[in-house]
Parts: sequence; C-alpha cells; structure tokens
Amino acid sequence: MAGTRTAQIMDEIRERISNRTLVPDERLPSIRSFAARMNVSPSTIVDAYDRLAGEGIIRSRPGSGFYVCSTLAPLDLATLGPKLDREIDPFWVSRQSLDAEAEMLKPGCGWLPPDWMPNDAIRKALRKLARADDNLLSEYGSTRGARNLRQLLARHLSDEGITIRPEQIMLAVSGTQAIDLICRFLLRPGDSVVIDDPCYFNFQALLKAHDVKVISVPYTVTGPDINRFSEALSTHKPRLYITNSALHNPTGATISPQTAHRLLTLAAQHDVTIVEDDIFSAFEPSPSPRLAALDGLERVIRIGSFSKTLSASVRCGYIAAKPEWIEALVDLQVATNFGGPSPMASALLFQVLSDGSYRKHMEDVRQKLSKKRLEIATKLEALNIKPWLMPRGGFYLWCTLPDGLDSARIASAALEQNVVLAPGNVFSPSQNMAQFMRFNVSQMSNSQTFQTLKTVMLAGKE
Amino acid sequence: MAGTRTAQIMDEIRERISNRTLVPDERLPSIRSFAARMNVSPSTIVDAYDRLAGEGIIRSRPGSGFYVCSTLAPLDLATLGPKLDREIDPFWVSRQSLDAEAEMLKPGCGWLPPDWMPNDAIRKALRKLARADDNLLSEYGSTRGARNLRQLLARHLSDEGITIRPEQIMLAVSGTQAIDLICRFLLRPGDSVVIDDPCYFNFQALLKAHDVKVISVPYTVTGPDINRFSEALSTHKPRLYITNSALHNPTGATISPQTAHRLLTLAAQHDVTIVEDDIFSAFEPSPSPRLAALDGLERVIRIGSFSKTLSASVRCGYIAAKPEWIEALVDLQVATNFGGPSPMASALLFQVLSDGSYRKHMEDVRQKLSKKRLEIATKLEALNIKPWLMPRGGFYLWCTLPDGLDSARIASAALEQNVVLAPGNVFSPSQNMAQFMRFNVSQMSNSQTFQTLKTVMLAGKE
Repeated sequence: MAGTRTAQIMDEIRERISNRTLVPDERLPSIRSFAARMNVSPSTIVDAYDRLAGEGIIRSRPGSGFYVCSTLAPLDLATLGPKLDREIDPFWVSRQSLDAEAEMLKPGCGWLPPDWMPNDAIRKALRKLARADDNLLSEYGSTRGARNLRQLLARHLSDEGITIRPEQIMLAVSGTQAIDLICRFLLRPGDSVVIDDPCYFNFQALLKAHDVKVISVPYTVTGPDINRFSEALSTHKPRLYITNSALHNPTGATISPQTAHRLLTLAAQHDVTIVEDDIFSAFEPSPSPRLAALDGLERVIRIGSFSKTLSASVRCGYIAAKPEWIEALVDLQVATNFGGPSPMASALLFQVLSDGSYRKHMEDVRQKLSKKRLEIATKLEALNIKPWLMPRGGFYLWCTLPDGLDSARIASAALEQNVVLAPGNVFSPSQNMAQFMRFNVSQMSNSQTFQTLKTVMLAGKE
Repeated sequence: MAGTRTAQIMDEIRERISNRTLVPDERLPSIRSFAARMNVSPSTIVDAYDRLAGEGIIRSRPGSGFYVCSTLAPLDLATLGPKLDREIDPFWVSRQSLDAEAEMLKPGCGWLPPDWMPNDAIRKALRKLARADDNLLSEYGSTRGARNLRQLLARHLSDEGITIRPEQIMLAVSGTQAIDLICRFLLRPGDSVVIDDPCYFNFQALLKAHDVKVISVPYTVTGPDINRFSEALSTHKPRLYITNSALHNPTGATISPQTAHRLLTLAAQHDVTIVEDDIFSAFEPSPSPRLAALDGLERVIRIGSFSKTLSASVRCGYIAAKPEWIEALVDLQVATNFGGPSPMASALLFQVLSDGSYRKHMEDVRQKLSKKRLEIATKLEALNIKPWLMPRGGFYLWCTLPDGLDSARIASAALEQNVVLAPGNVFSPSQNMAQFMRFNVSQMSNSQTFQTLKTVMLAGKE
C-alpha cells in the first residue's frame, strides 16, 4: 500500500536528519533521483516530502527543492534504537526501580535491601569523616582519585592474580560511568560492540548513547557461545566486548576456564578490547577465572564498584587498565566531570573496606544469599517459574515463566500493584526472551511479592 | 620541499583514520586519484603511503592497494585539536592544580582555600548524616535527584526571576558533567559551538571530547562582542553557545542588560541554545541580568554547582531546563552513570544550604573577597601586572603582564618553584592571550607567591 511506502520514506529522511547524514539547511535529494534510489514512484517521494514539510521538519524553497529546517530535534535515546514498547525499553527497570516509592516491592531491582548493607560501618565512617581535615571536606580530589583506596584496590586485585600498580587504577564516579568513559575513549559512532544476549540492560542503554552498532552473542551456562562469538568477530570486526565474567547479569552464570581462554585468543586475533565488569565478583563463593588475570590487562579493562557490596549511595567505581590508557582516561574524566568521585566518598569507602568488618559482612551476605536462593527457587517452582541455572552466588535467578506467559505483560500488571519486576526482553538485544524474568532473591522476603505474582500470572493466562 | 608535502599527506591520512573517515580494513584512495585531489605528484602519495605502512598504520596488499590496519589508536584528546605545547594545553591548569602537592601554592587554581569554606556546617551535616535512615545510606537516588534539594533550588532560582517547578531541575554529578550531558543531548560530531575568547579552559577540553567545531567570539567588559557573535551565528550556524554571564571566567566581567537582550534575540533568530553556567553568581554583590530569567528557560539551559561556595569535595551540580529536555537528560544520565549524584551528598548539601548559616557564610566570603581583590590588585600593579577589569565580585583578576613576557613561559618557570599559575592561552581558543594571566586573589595570601612571581618575571625578561 502506498501509505506504507510514504511512511518508510519519511522514516528514512527522519533517520538521516537524526543521525546528521542530512544537516540543517542542507538540500534534500531531488525527487527523481531519490525515487530511483529508493525504488519507489516520484509521487511517493513528493507525498513524503510534503508531509515532512507539514511537520516542520523540512521546508520547500520554490524552484530550488526541499531543505532540512534549521531546528533540529535533540538526541532522544528512545529513538536511537528500534522503537520498543515502553515495558521492554532498557530504561524500564532502571526508571521503575530507582524512582519506586518506599511502599513498593522490587524483586526486579539490581541491589540488596538496605538492611543487608553494612550501615553501622558506614555510620562510623561518617562520624570519622566529620573530624577530617578541612582539605578533605572542601577540596577537589586528585585526578586519579584517592591513593589509599587505589592501593587497597591494587592489593585486592593482586589477590585475584592481577598484578597491578596503583597508578594503573583510576577512580570513577560509578561503575557505569567507568564503562562510559572507556566507550568514549575507544569508540566512534558506527563502530561495532559485542554484548551478551541476555546482558545487563544498561549496557544497551549506554551503547545507544554512543550510537554504535550492537552485536549480541547468546550467553550459555559457561559463558558466551564461543562459535557465535568467533563468527561475530569475523563478520563485524567489533572494537569492544563488554561482559560480566563472574556471576553474569542476569543469568548468574560464570565463564568456564576453557571459554575464557578461547575468548581471549579470539579477541587477540581480531584485536578486540574487552571490558570486564566485575561488579558481582565479591559474591562468588570461590574465585572463578578472571579475563583480566589471564590476559594481564593487555586487552582487558577491569571495572568495578561498591554499589552492590557496601552502598549504592556512596558513588564510586574504578577502572584498572594499562598505564597509557589510564593517562588518557584521566584527561577524559577531567574534561567531562572535572575529576572523579567525591574525595569524601573515597575516604568513606577506604575506611569501611579497611576497618576489618568488611570480610565478615561479605561472608554473612554470601551465606544469607545462599539460603535465599534455595528458598526463593522453591517458592518460584511452586508457581511453575523455573531457574534457567542455579547460580554459584549472587542475588539473581534468571527464570522461565510457564508457557504462554509474556513477562513484559506480567511486569506491567505487577507494576499496577506496586511490584517492580524485570522482564526478560529488557536484557535481550535480540528481543527473544519474552518468557524470561530476572528475580532478585534478596528483595523477595515479603510474601505479598508471591501473592501479586500469582495474581498477575493468572490474569496473564486468560 | 617534497618532504613537507609528504608530511602533509601523512597528516591528512592520520586525521582521516583518527576521525574514522577511513575505518579499519578500508582501502585507501588510489594513488592516482588521491594525488589529483590533493594536487601533488603521485610519487608524493607513494612516499606518504610507504611511510605510513612503515609506521604500521596502513598496510599494502600486493595488487590491491593500501588498507587501514585493523588496530586503531584509541581517542587521544591531545591530538583532537591543534597540537599545543604542554604549557598551554587546556588540561594544564586542571592537572597541575588538582594534583598539586600540599606544599604548593596555587594562585592559578579555580577555587577558594579550604579555610574559607563552611567546614563547621559540613561537619555538622556529616554528623547528622551518620544518624540518617538506612535507605539514605545504602540505596541509589531517584533519577532526578533528591526532591528537597530540587525544591530549594527552585526557590533560589525564582528569587532570581526564573519561574520553575522542581520537576524542571535534575541533579547532576557536577557542573561539568551537567554541561557534558547537555552536549551529549544536543550535539553531534561536526556541529559548531560558540564559546567566549577567553573562556573557562575546561569548556575547550569538554568540546574536544565531543569532536565539534569550536567558534570563539571575543569577550568584552559587557559580554561577548555582539557584532562578532552575530557574524558567528550567520556564518557557522552553531547549535550551542556556552558562557558564564555573571562574573565570567576568567575575566570577571558581567554581561550588560543590552548585550543580554541582543544576544537572546540573535539566538532566537538563529535557533541557538544557550548554556548559562552560573557557577559564580552567588559571589555577585547584587544580581546581574540572567539569560535564563530573560528567556524563561525557553532556549537557555541553566547549570550550576556548589563547588565554589560550599565544597568541591561534595560532588553535585544541577541542570534547570524545559520539562521535555529534562526527561531526555534523565534517561541519558541513567544510561551513562546509572543516576546522578550521591544521595548522601545531596542530603549534606540540603542540610548546609538550609541551616541558616549559608547566607552569613556567603556574605563573609563576598566581603573578604572584596578586600582581597583590592589588596592583590595593588600588589600586582607594583609588579607592573595590570587587571584588565576590576570585577564586581568573585575571586579572579584577569591581568596583563608587562610587555615582552610570555605567560606560558612564566607559568612553567613558576611550577618548578612549586607555584601553579594560570597562563592566558589556556583560556583562549584563538591562542592570542599570551600576555594575560588569571590570578585567584583568595589563594595569594602567602608572600612567597609574589616573591616567586617577581623572580620568574625577572628571569623571563632576560
């Protein structure tokens, strides 16, 4: 039907304007040539141009053709990727769980409940901070961030087999901002980046902001499907691969030594840089293979943060990488944020990490999670919701819903009852995980969660 | 000479690879066609290609031409603009002053000394924070940032004549990150942006990271030279103008009502968005015209932070703009930082701003600065260093050095004596302010500063 072709042409023009292939005041292709190129009739082009002129996006100059109006719509992340329903937008879970009212239940969120966190240690650190030097309370931090915290991180990393000097660590405002800086450093619009399918939804949101091509590789219980990974590297020549190797989000899977080795070999062959986001590694019962350790930080960049283990309110992440990259990242963080995290926040973290209670806190959390995973998995199975894998650690269960249920619809219905869920497709670049749902076992102690789940699943079946 | 032409061709290719006009594995233009286009002999192109192949940047495939190697150098901000001497790099002052050792003197830095800051109020707020709810200590913040702080900011802004709802304000990690988010939202590589000449050096560093074309307009004692501003808008069709309208950095000048009005009229005619960075407005003795107030936040985006007035260690800035822009900026901040500033930092700022001592603190600071400006100006004039303007407020004096002295050389020599200065050209996109120097009067109480200045100026004359 002609209307559809017109709409396609209009979309094509909008797209060119939005990605600045066509810039303000530029003349649009002539009707005849564009019709030939798009393989449509000239009248379809005339129709599309007229409608776009009606929308104020382009304008006609008599005798001279059509021109892009000088008012450009600003970047709208929602339009950069395929248009998604609001419920499966990668921002859906972030927005709903960050802005949830206090009375809401959040089995879909990505952090531990406040009463699981080491608040006494944080209160103690705040009282100590109240007695700190004027300099710490009022001055900007150094460009790499607090040296004592970097030294402590270097020791933690060497325990994992990553030999590193404190100069190779830069503190960042958050784990997410750390990855963002790396993307700004390494990527240009149009580059390709490999991510897992499924993966942490915010990787997708972040990559949209960089206007890059996203290539997804299916994630298996032992890491990315290595044959598909190899194909992706040959076909798309990506610049970067972003992953969690330990307790992968959302699946809870951990990369196997064989996969880790093959993956690094392929990355070296194709000159791909790897961002290893190890935000969940402290939740492992025992250390798994680290890409950064195997590779020696040659082509792997390690990032981390303290939001899951200590406090998400203290904003601080870090980047560990080769020295010359850190130098450039320092400039980039000065240019875009005039430095890194709050010096007070770094001092607070250093205090909490080094006061002796941290190890005990993490042991307690791992034990509690170990019990909770079993307890919640049993309760979910009673609703015919089945874990895809029983993870070795962490707080996620990646589950399949009973046949015929769409997790996005279930999540929308649950939200109306004040329960925030995390439907499968927000994690899936390929959008074929509608039957999956990610549950956070630490956020499911209130029995109302299961009551609501049961109700909305029953309604969803009708 | 042939060598020069070869070098030019090599630079051209490097530039195309660096800005990804040529991508990895892409074939380079044929020798014949490229020679014709560049108006050089084919042998010059052969020579350039051979040398680049020797450097490992491109490689030859026999019988098929030259190709870009698949290893690309990552983004290096230092190479994005014209190659500058390290002493006049826009990063020079940031790096030196942020990473200065405790014993160094910093008349070139951009903030007040620790003992000028309201540290008692901050200590009190930290002690209060130590008694806060678990939620505040451990959870992520809401996507727009703490509502009480946004309400308080909305009241402050309405006192300046900017009518605004708290929903139109988003808290950001810093004032710089606020501008960075706006640039990410509004700009695409290759867009043009107008800044003042001179201007805050980090505007230049930030814009380099966005790969945009920087157009500078001379700044006068009453704001940007309005005729040159008008020309820049007609000629370059910029998307954005970034400025400080009150107590402009580095000059200390303030825009006049006439200039403000004409500037807004021109911006409307050419559909230019204005970022008004009002970080120094609290230092004014009486309010000056606000672009955001005159315009009603239609095309002006107001940004600010608390780093100059309360603490640079508490990282928090804000953006005030029209509601639909704030919505998109919220998504962008979630994607790139998983939210805004630390909720603890926002709570601390709210406490300090609302505890009654803030007004008194700022009155004291303004009075002290008023005296200091006179005292330091007198001492500088004794060295034949003359303020370009005696500012109404703030801590900067933008001065000319005696004839024949180059401020970059003076700054390098002073650094060897542990004094960080801010030479004119770091502020100047046009690089013609070698005779200027910015002094921070609040950081010049130590007489060693003047002693060093005298010594290095004497040496600089020889």
